[in-house]
Amino acid sequence: MHKLVLIRHGESTWNLENRFTGWVDVGLTETGIAQARSAGRRLKEAGFTFDKAYTSVLKRAIHTLWHCLDEMDCTWLPVEKSWRLNERHYGALQGLNKAETAQQYGDDQVLIWRRSYDTPPPAQDPADAVNERTDRRYASLAPEQFPATECLKDTVARVLPYWESQIAPDIRAGRQLVIAAHGNSLRALVKYLDGVSDQDIVGLNIPNGNPLVYELDEALKPIRSYYLQA
Amino acid sequence: MHKLVLIRHGESTWNLENRFTGWVDVGLTETGIAQARSAGRRLKEAGFTFDKAYTSVLKRAIHTLWHCLDEMDCTWLPVEKSWRLNERHYGALQGLNKAETAQQYGDDQVLIWRRSYDTPPPAQDPADAVNERTDRRYASLAPEQFPATECLKDTVARVLPYWESQIAPDIRAGRQLVIAAHGNSLRALVKYLDGVSDQDIVGLNIPNGNPLVYELDEALKPIRSYYLQA
Repeated sequence: MHKLVLIRHGESTWNLENRFTGWVDVGLTETGIAQARSAGRRLKEAGFTFDKAYTSVLKRAIHTLWHCLDEMDCTWLPVEKSWRLNERHYGALQGLNKAETAQQYGDDQVLIWRRSYDTPPPAQDPADAVNERTDRRYASLAPEQFPATECLKDTVARVLPYWESQIAPDIRAGRQLVIAAHGNSLRALVKYLDGVSDQDIVGLNIPNGNPLVYELDEALKPIRSYYLQA
Repeated sequence: MHKLVLIRHGESTWNLENRFTGWVDVGLTETGIAQARSAGRRLKEAGFTFDKAYTSVLKRAIHTLWHCLDEMDCTWLPVEKSWRLNERHYGALQGLNKAETAQQYGDDQVLIWRRSYDTPPPAQDPADAVNERTDRRYASLAPEQFPATECLKDTVARVLPYWESQIAPDIRAGRQLVIAAHGNSLRALVKYLDGVSDQDIVGLNIPNGNPLVYELDEALKPIRSYYLQA
């Protein structure tokens, strides 16, 4: 039986400011740091050990992982970072306040962008996003791989190849993994692991900083999953 | 021309307590954290960018790297951690106070252990060090690879294969690297790069948290090296 732990990053400064974040690289709040450290303490108390960690290339997830590993006293673990575990790209909405966006476009439209499985928000103008697109952390991406916007379906489509090529082989090799990532990149994994429908996944919320434990059988099918309660 | 930056970890709790540390995994003091963050700020101000980072599996080096990358806003960099970049193993002296050890063994003897190139301190009894030897971070080491004690010559002997197999190929591939490590694992690299004699290397001290910049030619021979002053 394999164990896999998923952790959504702690509260970020833009969670607090109620802004669409996506690939914008914002940090954790003090609350977010405390959530991450609490997650690490709970994992340690519950006897979890890991062989390797995965995270995105965004610091709210990286810092969450660091604080968690610190509390578990295993900062020495190998860590793989990939843009494929990044949050869903929020297109032209990135940086906008959610309430103001609702006033401008209407609640119904914003709800569709936030909760539809396959309707992406308006695309980001590449000219507006030149700094992101030339950011060295994305140098390995072909231009067509850099999203201008994503619906959850798009996020699933770029997370799953990473699961197949990197994460699943590690689990099959017997490694206990922790993945510190984002609401939507983790929903992509949960959708795949639990076979959640396109309709149901959009209503599933993964709370910040609460370890979600999967016990998987030899075929990597879930036997059970649960949150590690505080 | 290649650039390589070496950083010795910031002040650790046992630097402050004047104890022999070696492979014991102690953390940074507040001063040590400030040194690491200052190093990151200076590197950023001087326009340094990195493609990859190397560190040991000891948290005083790992935390130094983290704080440094944080200040440079490049926590997303790939990081490789290896026991081969660990501090020199201090054998049976690990954990002992340096002044008390000098009282017990005499100043001359302790100076030999601290400053001789090829005289190791007394070996650690493996039975006393069972927790270290079974620590999961060293699971990949064959029993005979786990040192019972090391002189600087021994440290050089386990650092250089890592330079040859991992670090040098990365530099030749054009990657700008930062290595956050320890007084003696960095002295091993400096000895090799600068061709320092066995006699002279023991008198060379690398200060905590001060980036040491090497400019290397195509053959990875130093053109010049300098500390990035505060």
